[in-house]
Amino acid sequence: MKIVVIGGGAAGLGVAGAAKGQDPSVETVVYTEFEDVAYSPCGIPFVHGKEIDSFERLFLATKEQYVQQGIDVHYETTVESIDLKSKSIQVKGEGWVTYDRLVLATGWDYATPDVPGTDLEGIYHVKNIRAAMEWDKYLDTVRQAVVVESGPIAMEMVSALRHRGIEVTLVDPGPWPMADVIDPDIVEPVRADWEADGVDLRFNEKVTGFVGKGGKLTHATTSFGDVPCQLAVIGSHKVANAGLARAAGIKLGSTGGIAVDPQMRTSDPHVYAAGDCAEIPHGVSNVPLQGLSGSHAYAQGKTAGINAAGGRRTHNPVYVPWGMLAGQWMIGGVSFGETLATALGLPFVTGVANGITRARYYPGVKPITVKLLVDPRSRRLIGAQMVGGEGIKERADFLGIVARTGVPIDTLATMENVYSPAIGALNEPIAMAAQAAVAKL
Amino acid sequence: MKIVVIGGGAAGLGVAGAAKGQDPSVETVVYTEFEDVAYSPCGIPFVHGKEIDSFERLFLATKEQYVQQGIDVHYETTVESIDLKSKSIQVKGEGWVTYDRLVLATGWDYATPDVPGTDLEGIYHVKNIRAAMEWDKYLDTVRQAVVVESGPIAMEMVSALRHRGIEVTLVDPGPWPMADVIDPDIVEPVRADWEADGVDLRFNEKVTGFVGKGGKLTHATTSFGDVPCQLAVIGSHKVANAGLARAAGIKLGSTGGIAVDPQMRTSDPHVYAAGDCAEIPHGVSNVPLQGLSGSHAYAQGKTAGINAAGGRRTHNPVYVPWGMLAGQWMIGGVSFGETLATALGLPFVTGVANGITRARYYPGVKPITVKLLVDPRSRRLIGAQMVGGEGIKERADFLGIVARTGVPIDTLATMENVYSPAIGALNEPIAMAAQAAVAKL
Repeated sequence: MKIVVIGGGAAGLGVAGAAKGQDPSVETVVYTEFEDVAYSPCGIPFVHGKEIDSFERLFLATKEQYVQQGIDVHYETTVESIDLKSKSIQVKGEGWVTYDRLVLATGWDYATPDVPGTDLEGIYHVKNIRAAMEWDKYLDTVRQAVVVESGPIAMEMVSALRHRGIEVTLVDPGPWPMADVIDPDIVEPVRADWEADGVDLRFNEKVTGFVGKGGKLTHATTSFGDVPCQLAVIGSHKVANAGLARAAGIKLGSTGGIAVDPQMRTSDPHVYAAGDCAEIPHGVSNVPLQGLSGSHAYAQGKTAGINAAGGRRTHNPVYVPWGMLAGQWMIGGVSFGETLATALGLPFVTGVANGITRARYYPGVKPITVKLLVDPRSRRLIGAQMVGGEGIKERADFLGIVARTGVPIDTLATMENVYSPAIGALNEPIAMAAQAAVAKL
Repeated sequence: MKIVVIGGGAAGLGVAGAAKGQDPSVETVVYTEFEDVAYSPCGIPFVHGKEIDSFERLFLATKEQYVQQGIDVHYETTVESIDLKSKSIQVKGEGWVTYDRLVLATGWDYATPDVPGTDLEGIYHVKNIRAAMEWDKYLDTVRQAVVVESGPIAMEMVSALRHRGIEVTLVDPGPWPMADVIDPDIVEPVRADWEADGVDLRFNEKVTGFVGKGGKLTHATTSFGDVPCQLAVIGSHKVANAGLARAAGIKLGSTGGIAVDPQMRTSDPHVYAAGDCAEIPHGVSNVPLQGLSGSHAYAQGKTAGINAAGGRRTHNPVYVPWGMLAGQWMIGGVSFGETLATALGLPFVTGVANGITRARYYPGVKPITVKLLVDPRSRRLIGAQMVGGEGIKERADFLGIVARTGVPIDTLATMENVYSPAIGALNEPIAMAAQAAVAKL
């Protein structure tokens, strides 16, 4: 049994490791265009921001470790096409290579802004670590930067650029940062924090083009005027890198990602897909989603790898607990906020609580706001939104399971909570928010 | 309707506030022996340890605030007896006072070690804030201290005394710290931390008496020898302060706490009880428990207050998420560890994972160990034990709901988790521990 994987990110390596775990006798070959696998691209903004002292620290494993695990990784190798009939792929420099099972883990790209000047020097898509090492040197020469749209990595780049003393203008067509996933009241402390730090925030405004001199970026033009800059960070949304699949005749879904069944199998029975190139249904709305986190990609890879190697695992619909650092705050949530739920026409009531993370007198205590969205008929959670100083990730994970298992809001309203001054307050904000929702219902 | 409350702690004030919330027309009178209500006794060890700069900061509300809420608090007032027939209580200096509903929130005391010398000066029961203010001055004169048994407050006092440069000997009849609630592998980092800090740790050893000179403590005698000390902190377990109830003929339970039904009503239909003086069933074993946290006391008080004022609320059995700072670590859990589950004869399999709290390269990343105990037949969680550098409280709250709602371990093994370098690792240790348990089942 030979499993061929295209892509060396979290999904692709998840596939290879899980396939070997399922059946050590399978042959696993991974093709990647890049020089490296097994590093954390999510860490790049924090090296740029100098919270992390070196790109080397982002590498998880050495190339030798994969050799020892019996995973054959072909670096800097481009796969040019897939032939489903002969179960083979065309590899640049290697010719046609056959497979028993193929797993597509081809990842994502930034949606390219459809404006003139995107080929200028100085336009940065934060993604690849080798490129980031070069860009890091370039950042030392930058005085003014534009961040185009406020995707998650862009949000982190705003902070990173400020940490380096670079003047930042954020230009976003939305009415507030990350408007597609977060509510304005929840992101307000982040906006205020950036404003206080001197970031030029331009919402409801679009970049209309990039202008340069001698091939080098000198300013961005927007729907309201020019912004001088030596750097533009592209923070547009993720699109599935599904060109190979489409060309081979594999079915894509409504997001443009590869359509898969709950075993991560594509429209071809010998081909699986996992990670940002695939789409997966949302647990509340059943709408397909694409472009989630590295942990989602890894989990999908494991499912695809186990199934490709002859096992059987089902991937559940997702509720998407998420969280991140934004300015001096942590933001996060699960599934829908008010904005998105309203747009989707989902009925809901909200429960909001402003709490604290430790006893009010204990050093390091931080504020935290929890907003819960509850379906008034089922009394189940359909989403959550949070901002605070600590404990956002753990609460988002918790509420992800609450949403998935359908814990009634009434149960959450009477939850027990740890109270110990140094680590938790008398009243847990999740319980308080649930109580507020119950009072409305 | 007149509701009389005996006790001014978290439970008693929970009663008064909730009764007023349920029906603002009720008359609520609170009797307390002490000069103060509405402070956080749990903060006392941290003022002694100088993490918190003043006892004043532990006060939550002023006496005027209770007056404004219409809650009549009688300070420094002793209730001497209860007469159920005439529905009245005998108050020192006030005579007999009638009630329509009585709520007992008389709290707890330390079990007094049955050894000679407990009346010597220098023996400290950490509980009351005014006493703590005096003891704080005394601590400046102390060079050597003995901590007798490792209850939660005693654990915090070990750290507090070390922060003040006092030599500490911990004498505990158990085989490791807090042996009744925590497993040895989980508490080992705390033990090692204290050992490295020079704490003289004596397990499987008992204090047999206190010896003094001129009425002042000079040393403790133990089953293995003498320990010179000017201070002994009593860390023995909590016992219910239920003497008034017992004398009145109200039924006590097997723990010595006041027996209550799910509405927190005692054996007398006009009398309720809440907090550490009452006992409440455990959700897994149905065994009654007594002596939980301040948030448990407050929640029980709210239930009793609502019901006493004519509402209807049911208190659920408890799963007891708990957590605290211990040395440089946070420890915590839910319900049972291996030690207690084994002692109770509960069948279980464990799943253990050693994880990290942020991306391994992100500043401030801390180790975290999660151990889950799963009933092999129902595949439900019966307990959890954790030690780590951050995020213990939030995970304990989460696992409390998992235990209460019976989320299967298989669901936990496939949980989604937030991955963002600054706030969470690729793999959530709860999910990893659940996967380890599933692999064994």
